[in-house]
Amino acid sequence: MASSVFSTHGTTRFPEGRNIFGDSNKSNLFHYKKNHSPATLTHSSLLSKNRIQCRAIEVQTNHTFLKGDKFQLEDVIEAQQFDRDTLSAIFKVAREMETIEKNSHGSQLLNGYLMATLFYEPSTRTRLSFESAMKRLGGEVLTTENAREFSSAAKGETLEDSIRTVEGYSDIIVMRHFESGAARRAAMTANIPVINAGDGPGQHPTQALLDMYTIEREIGKLDGIKVGLVGDLANGRTVRSLAYLLAKYDNVKVYFVSPQVVKMKEDIKEYLTMKGVKWEESVDLKEVASECDVVYQTRIQKERFGERSDLYEEARGKYIIDGEVLGVMQEHAIVMHPLPRLDEIRVEVDGDPRAAYFRQAKNGLYIRMALLKLLLIGW
Amino acid sequence: MASSVFSTHGTTRFPEGRNIFGDSNKSNLFHYKKNHSPATLTHSSLLSKNRIQCRAIEVQTNHTFLKGDKFQLEDVIEAQQFDRDTLSAIFKVAREMETIEKNSHGSQLLNGYLMATLFYEPSTRTRLSFESAMKRLGGEVLTTENAREFSSAAKGETLEDSIRTVEGYSDIIVMRHFESGAARRAAMTANIPVINAGDGPGQHPTQALLDMYTIEREIGKLDGIKVGLVGDLANGRTVRSLAYLLAKYDNVKVYFVSPQVVKMKEDIKEYLTMKGVKWEESVDLKEVASECDVVYQTRIQKERFGERSDLYEEARGKYIIDGEVLGVMQEHAIVMHPLPRLDEIRVEVDGDPRAAYFRQAKNGLYIRMALLKLLLIGW
Amino acid sequence: MASSVFSTHGTTRFPEGRNIFGDSNKSNLFHYKKNHSPATLTHSSLLSKNRIQCRAIEVQTNHTFLKGDKFQLEDVIEAQQFDRDTLSAIFKVAREMETIEKNSHGSQLLNGYLMATLFYEPSTRTRLSFESAMKRLGGEVLTTENAREFSSAAKGETLEDSIRTVEGYSDIIVMRHFESGAARRAAMTANIPVINAGDGPGQHPTQALLDMYTIEREIGKLDGIKVGLVGDLANGRTVRSLAYLLAKYDNVKVYFVSPQVVKMKEDIKEYLTMKGVKWEESVDLKEVASECDVVYQTRIQKERFGERSDLYEEARGKYIIDGEVLGVMQEHAIVMHPLPRLDEIRVEVDGDPRAAYFRQAKNGLYIRMALLKLLLIGW
Repeated sequence: MASSVFSTHGTTRFPEGRNIFGDSNKSNLFHYKKNHSPATLTHSSLLSKNRIQCRAIEVQTNHTFLKGDKFQLEDVIEAQQFDRDTLSAIFKVAREMETIEKNSHGSQLLNGYLMATLFYEPSTRTRLSFESAMKRLGGEVLTTENAREFSSAAKGETLEDSIRTVEGYSDIIVMRHFESGAARRAAMTANIPVINAGDGPGQHPTQALLDMYTIEREIGKLDGIKVGLVGDLANGRTVRSLAYLLAKYDNVKVYFVSPQVVKMKEDIKEYLTMKGVKWEESVDLKEVASECDVVYQTRIQKERFGERSDLYEEARGKYIIDGEVLGVMQEHAIVMHPLPRLDEIRVEVDGDPRAAYFRQAKNGLYIRMALLKLLLIGW
Repeated sequence: MASSVFSTHGTTRFPEGRNIFGDSNKSNLFHYKKNHSPATLTHSSLLSKNRIQCRAIEVQTNHTFLKGDKFQLEDVIEAQQFDRDTLSAIFKVAREMETIEKNSHGSQLLNGYLMATLFYEPSTRTRLSFESAMKRLGGEVLTTENAREFSSAAKGETLEDSIRTVEGYSDIIVMRHFESGAARRAAMTANIPVINAGDGPGQHPTQALLDMYTIEREIGKLDGIKVGLVGDLANGRTVRSLAYLLAKYDNVKVYFVSPQVVKMKEDIKEYLTMKGVKWEESVDLKEVASECDVVYQTRIQKERFGERSDLYEEARGKYIIDGEVLGVMQEHAIVMHPLPRLDEIRVEVDGDPRAAYFRQAKNGLYIRMALLKLLLIGW
Repeated sequence: MASSVFSTHGTTRFPEGRNIFGDSNKSNLFHYKKNHSPATLTHSSLLSKNRIQCRAIEVQTNHTFLKGDKFQLEDVIEAQQFDRDTLSAIFKVAREMETIEKNSHGSQLLNGYLMATLFYEPSTRTRLSFESAMKRLGGEVLTTENAREFSSAAKGETLEDSIRTVEGYSDIIVMRHFESGAARRAAMTANIPVINAGDGPGQHPTQALLDMYTIEREIGKLDGIKVGLVGDLANGRTVRSLAYLLAKYDNVKVYFVSPQVVKMKEDIKEYLTMKGVKWEESVDLKEVASECDVVYQTRIQKERFGERSDLYEEARGKYIIDGEVLGVMQEHAIVMHPLPRLDEIRVEVDGDPRAAYFRQAKNGLYIRMALLKLLLIGW
C-alpha cells in the first residue's frame, strides 16, 4: 500500500537489474538509501511487471536522530508522515538553522548539491522560500515555473517521464502541482528525494510543519494548547493538515470559528474525536480568542463561491481579527495566518508582538532548510 | 517627511519593541544600520501607532568614503538622493569593479549574500544586469519575474506584506514595479536595503547613475560639458533623471532636440534655470551634434501616441543619428542611448569609436556592482 | 562564406580599432581567441564596412587535443562543425564529466564563469540540462525564458543588439530561438562563445552530439553499426542531424521506417549515398529491429498535420515500440528517443535494460558539461 511507503518507519526502494539512470554509484548522495539490512524487510510490493522494476519496502527501524544517522524519510509528501519524535527532532534542526542563517554568511553544508524546483503552477512565495533555504546552505538551484510545458497537451509527456529526466539533472526535487496525488507519483518514480510543495487540493506538508514549529517556538509547547481555527475551514488545506498534526499531541483543544458556508468538514471532526482531541464549534470569535493560545486565521477564498459573490462578501466580513479581538487575547497568545492575507487581519494588528504571521513565514525558511539538510545528508 | 528619509545625509530606522521579523541579530548584514550615535539625531517621526513601530531618523553626518565606513544610503530610490561627492565616490568604486570583472574570476566580496529580484513587470535587460552584478561579486540571487502573482487581484496582498515576506528570504531587494512610488513604499517597509530598478513613470536611478558614469568615463569630466538630449523628451524618464543629475555640475549646457509632440516639459526647464544651467531648444540636430560632448539619443515610444500612428511615424523619423550626423561630431564626443533602440541610431554608426551605447550598457554592470557592494558592506 | 566560419579547422575573429565592448583585456576568458599565428591565415572576409569591423578568419590547424590546448571551435552552431577526431575527443571529455558528476560534489572547474541562457522560446528540458551542466562544474547562470521581450514588436530590438548587451553580462551564451539561422547570427555578433540550443527548424547540435555519444557509450563503437530511424523522419531535426553525423563513420547502415506522409526527405538520402553510407527504407519495424544495433524512435508531431487529424492518428499508431518489438531485438541493441515521448514507446519497455532513452537524456548533461568546459577553458 502506498501509505506504508511513506511511513515514518523508514522506507527504501531498490532498483533492480541494470541501472537505467546511470547514477547508482552516486553513493555520497544516496548512501541513506542503501544502509538497510535485508533482515529488516517486512513488506515488499512489485510495482509493475513491465516498467521499472522497483520494490517499495517498509523497514522497521527505531528512531535514531544522532548526527550522521540517515533521515527516516526519503520524501516529504504529506503531514501524516511525521510522528511526535520526528517532528521534535526536526524542530531542533530548524533551530540550528536559525543560528546558521543569522550568525554567518555562506554555510557550505549543502555545497555541491543541486535542487530542482519543478512548479507546475506558480507559487512565487513558496518557491522563493525553498530556493532561499537551499542557497543559505550553500546549495544550488535549477528553477522552473514553466513545468507545465513538460506535459503540455501538445507534447503530452507523463509526469513520470518528466521526473525521470529532471532527476538526472539534480539531487532533490521540490514539486508544486495542480493535481492531488502528483507528489506521491513523483516520489514513486524518482530515485532522488521529492518534497511536495503543494499538490492541488491535496497536501502542503512543509506549511503544516512550519505552523507547528511556529506554535512550539512562540508558545513553548505543543501539549495542552488551545487553538482557534478561524475562517475558511472547509477548503483550506492548511487548517486540515494542522488538525491532523495537532491530534498527535496531548490535551489539545481545538475551536472552529467559521461562516456557516465554509464550516470544518465532518471527516476532521471525527478524526479528532477518534484521537481524543476535544473540539467545539463557536460563533463568538472574541470568546474563543480570549481562551486560546493560538488564533489561526485564514483567508476566505473568493473562487470557492463561484457566482454567489453575495455569500462571499457575507462570509468574508464575518470574522475579522482587529484591535478589539487582540484586546481580549492573552499576553502570551499569538495570531497566525498562512498568508497572503486580505483584510481578515487588520493592518492595525501588525505592530503588536502577538502578531506572529511574518515570523511564521520566516519559520518556513528554517523548516525548509532543515528538511533539505535531512533529506540530503541526514541527521 | 519621506524625502528626508532618503536624503544623502544618512538615514536610519530603528524597529522598536519585540522584533517581529526575527532577524535583528543579523549584525553582519545590518551593522551599517546601527552605528549612529544618538547625539546626531535631528528628526524623528513615528510612522504608525498600531503597525510596525518604526522611526524614520535623519542623521547629519559628514561625508565619509573611507574603506569600511558605512554607505550614506540605506536604499536607492531616486536619482536626487545623490550629491556630487557621493556620485564621485561611487564612480571610483565602479572603476574598481571594472578591474574585478576583467582581471579575475569569482570575486567573493558578496559571498553569502542573497539578492531578491522582485520584478512586477518583466525587464530582462535590467534584471540580467543586476543578477550579473551580484554573481560577479560572489553573491547569490533569488529571481522572480512573476511578482505580480504576489499581489494578484484574486489574492489581493499588499506590496507591504509581500516585502515583509521576501525580506525574510534575502539580504537586499531589487524591485521593478509598474506604479510610481512603489519603490519608496517598499523601502519604508523593508528592514533590508531596497534598490529601485524602475517604478512605472517614476524613477530608474541606476540608469541615471550609469549614464553619468559613462559621461565621466568617456569624456573625462562632468563640469563644463555640453549635452544634447534628443528624441522623446516628454516621456523618457531617462532624460529627465539625467537633467536632474547634470544640474549638480558647473557650467553644463543642455540642448533639447525633439519633435514638437514630445518636447521636454516645463518643470525640467524651470529646474535647470533655477539651478543656473544654460539650456536651449533646437530643431537642428547637426548643429547641436557639432557643438556637444554628448549626444544622448532616445527612442520615440509608439505606445505614447495611441491611435495617431501618423504622428508617431512623423516624430520617429525626424531626428536620426546616422553617418552624416556622426560626420559633424567632434573627435572626442560620444553618442549615447539607453537601449533598446529601433532605427533612431543607424546600424552604420555602431562601428565608430564614438558610438558609446554598448559600453554604456556594460557600465550598468559596474554601477550595479558598486551599489550592491556599498549597500551590503559599505565603502 | 559563412560555412567556413564554423569549420572544425578553427576560426577566429579579430575586432579591430577601439574596443567597443570594453572587455578585450579579459584575457583569462578569451585567450583561446587570440593564439593564432598570422602565418596560418588562409581566408578573411570583411563583414561590413560601417558596422563592427570584424574579420572572419579560417585558420588551418592540426588537431590538438592536449590538455591546455584551446578548443577548435569558438561556437557550437551546427552538427556539421564536428569531424570524427573532434567528436571522439569530446566524448572522452564527456566520460570525464561522468566521473566528476558521480564521484564528487562541487567541481570548481568553471568557478567564476557566468553562462546566460537566452531562450526566445521555452524549452525547460534543454534549459535545465545546460544549467545543471554549468552548475555541476561550479559555474553560475543567468536565466531568461522571456528573451522574446528583448525583441518584442513593441520594442523592436534586433537580435544583434540583444546579444551585444547580454555578452556584457556573461562569459558564454546558450541560445534557443524560433528562427533558423538565429544562432549563427548571434555567433557572428558575439565576442564570447555561443551555443545553439535549437534554432527553429534549423539545428540542435548538442542533441546530435548526445545521440552519438549515447551510441558509442552503449554499443561501444560507431563504425560498422546498423541504425533504424523510426517515426517522423520528415520533420524531426534530430534524425536529420544524426544522419549527417553517422555519415562520418565507416560501414554504417541506416534503415528508415516511417509512415508514408513523414518519410525521410531526398536530400538526406542523397547525402548518405554520396558519402557511401548504405541505407534502405522499410515498412517492417520488427525486421529492422531484429537487425539493428540502435532503434531510434521519434515522436509524430501533431502540429505538422494541421487539420488532417485523421492522417495524424494513422501515422501515429503505425510504428510503436512495444514488448513484441523488444522481443526480436538483439541482446546488445538499444532503443533511443530524444524525448518527450507520447506512446510511440510503450511504458512496458522502460524496465528493459535496452531502453536507453533516459540514459540518453542524462548523457545530454555530460555532453553539455564537456562543451562548456571546452569552449571556456579548452582541452
